Amino acid sequence: MRPLFLCIISNTDTGKIAGLSAAGTSPELTDYTPGADAELVETNRIITMPELPEAPGGSPTPAIVTKAALNLTGIPSMFVASGLRKKPAVPYVELGGSAGSDIRNSPAVPDARTIYENASMLGKKLSRLSDCVFIGESIAGGTTTALAVLRALGYQTQVSSSFQSNPIALKEEVVAGAFRRAGITNGSLKNDPLRAVEQVGDPMMPAALGLMRGLKGCRVVLSGGTQMAAVLALGKALAIEGDISIATTKYIIEDKSANFKEIVESTGRPYYYSDPGLENSKIPPVQIYAQGYVKEGVGMGGAALLAATYGIEQMRLVEETDRVLMTVELPAK
Amino acid sequence: MRPLFLCIISNTDTGKIAGLSAAGTSPELTDYTPGADAELVETNRIITMPELPEAPGGSPTPAIVTKAALNLTGIPSMFVASGLRKKPAVPYVELGGSAGSDIRNSPAVPDARTIYENASMLGKKLSRLSDCVFIGESIAGGTTTALAVLRALGYQTQVSSSFQSNPIALKEEVVAGAFRRAGITNGSLKNDPLRAVEQVGDPMMPAALGLMRGLKGCRVVLSGGTQMAAVLALGKALAIEGDISIATTKYIIEDKSANFKEIVESTGRPYYYSDPGLENSKIPPVQIYAQGYVKEGVGMGGAALLAATYGIEQMRLVEETDRVLMTVELPAK
Repeated sequence: MRPLFLCIISNTDTGKIAGLSAAGTSPELTDYTPGADAELVETNRIITMPELPEAPGGSPTPAIVTKAALNLTGIPSMFVASGLRKKPAVPYVELGGSAGSDIRNSPAVPDARTIYENASMLGKKLSRLSDCVFIGESIAGGTTTALAVLRALGYQTQVSSSFQSNPIALKEEVVAGAFRRAGITNGSLKNDPLRAVEQVGDPMMPAALGLMRGLKGCRVVLSGGTQMAAVLALGKALAIEGDISIATTKYIIEDKSANFKEIVESTGRPYYYSDPGLENSKIPPVQIYAQGYVKEGVGMGGAALLAATYGIEQMRLVEETDRVLMTVELPAK
Repeated sequence: MRPLFLCIISNTDTGKIAGLSAAGTSPELTDYTPGADAELVETNRIITMPELPEAPGGSPTPAIVTKAALNLTGIPSMFVASGLRKKPAVPYVELGGSAGSDIRNSPAVPDARTIYENASMLGKKLSRLSDCVFIGESIAGGTTTALAVLRALGYQTQVSSSFQSNPIALKEEVVAGAFRRAGITNGSLKNDPLRAVEQVGDPMMPAALGLMRGLKGCRVVLSGGTQMAAVLALGKALAIEGDISIATTKYIIEDKSANFKEIVESTGRPYYYSDPGLENSKIPPVQIYAQGYVKEGVGMGGAALLAATYGIEQMRLVEETDRVLMTVELPAK
């Protein structure tokens, strides 16, 4: 096996709606979170953001688990920017595109089709170099755009949240506003999935879809929660074929406010999940992951699964996660 | 063999000195040439530049030969931006850094060490995915910065030109001006090669050096003329080890105004060259490559060598080169 861990990094202004996303402590810093995740995974340093990305409960970014799993397995990672406003100071692949809009106000991703084609081209190249590609994401506000896209495809469903308590009513309000603006009703775009992305999605989605298409012939494992389940649903609507599955965390599977399993099962694709065992961390803000804070992101579930398939014990991954967090370098204040 | 063809794309204001570089028909368009080369190789379309990049003699960019070789072999390519001002509209890897300065006026690449570290990180990843990496370049004005760096390392040598008639006196004048500005004399930086790049080099160089270092364990074939020979010389001064060689065209080997072979031999690395046979093209501006116009660029020599090792006959490569040129899509006027 020649595995490769990809992570798509994107921005969407939908993630800046107050109360919606837990990624980044303030809306101003939201744009920097994906780039900082890339910096942490690639170098264990935060370079372009003043602080470690964290959720409102005080939990650090799930990038620490991903970094730990990649450290222990030696699997190469590559970050892929799609509609990213603030670029990381480490090497990454650029797919282009603008940051996604607030879906209530204007079409979400006008350049969705170009991103899809570019990502497809990249996937085709990578399929010559790897035979098993994991695809994670870091985009604040992505569960709301996932909900909007799922509804546009006709799924009656709920999505997860990086908050412990899922702000479902607010998400519904945002989706309703976007549907009014775009003239969409539930299921009205089930035969035009790329239009659903264009109108109410985010720039991570066409990148993940294009990669999936281009990577035909490889094993592709989407790594994420309901956001990646929405990508699976879009892929089904686009009739993208291949050895495609999804991996997530136990925390997503146990999330009663969301319908991860139902969405995935309706696409006919298999799912896997890993238990990162973070209740065994020595660091309280990491322990509370196990109580449903954060849940997923930066491909954490897939990375933990990879670690397990490499024979790394759960406790070893927890220790390395703690070590990563304790040693991450932050910019001088 | 799992080969990968990389091409570093960079800008330097040294390339805008009138009379120095043949890449791009005007200094204003020079910055767009590397990105347009990437677009041509990745899609056979020019997107961000108004016209096909060409040399003053009217010859098209050597990217057409590279594209032909990659088409015929199916080898994946990846463009790597380092100090690139105008980005291509196709996927590429971003290493960061600013465009290089006019070496007469200010330090050439102040962020050379950061680029070197970033490229090294990328090389390390790619060494997990490929076992044989070709590294080409597209940077207008690169032979003059190559000359400056070689002199700073103590090489008494001449470099090639994309002009049929090498503007040697002008290059010497530019190098002399840069040496005065930076307080350098011939050989004075032979023990500090990265400082030579910082002061009088260009952003392609630290990218190529970092890749070479990171790709340890892979076969690395630099693909270019005297610019890549200068990178070999820098690599020797940095004591970078590994299976490193250089591939170029017959046109560079036959260039009596330059010392490609002497430079390479002094580094102790092997060189290969290919004869693209372009005198057999049906298109006069391509035929004149064989008379010493253009000579190298965009890894053309290495790509033609790869085609030959894949059993593709010279005439087949020429036909495909002509086909690429006849079918390339240009922006609507």
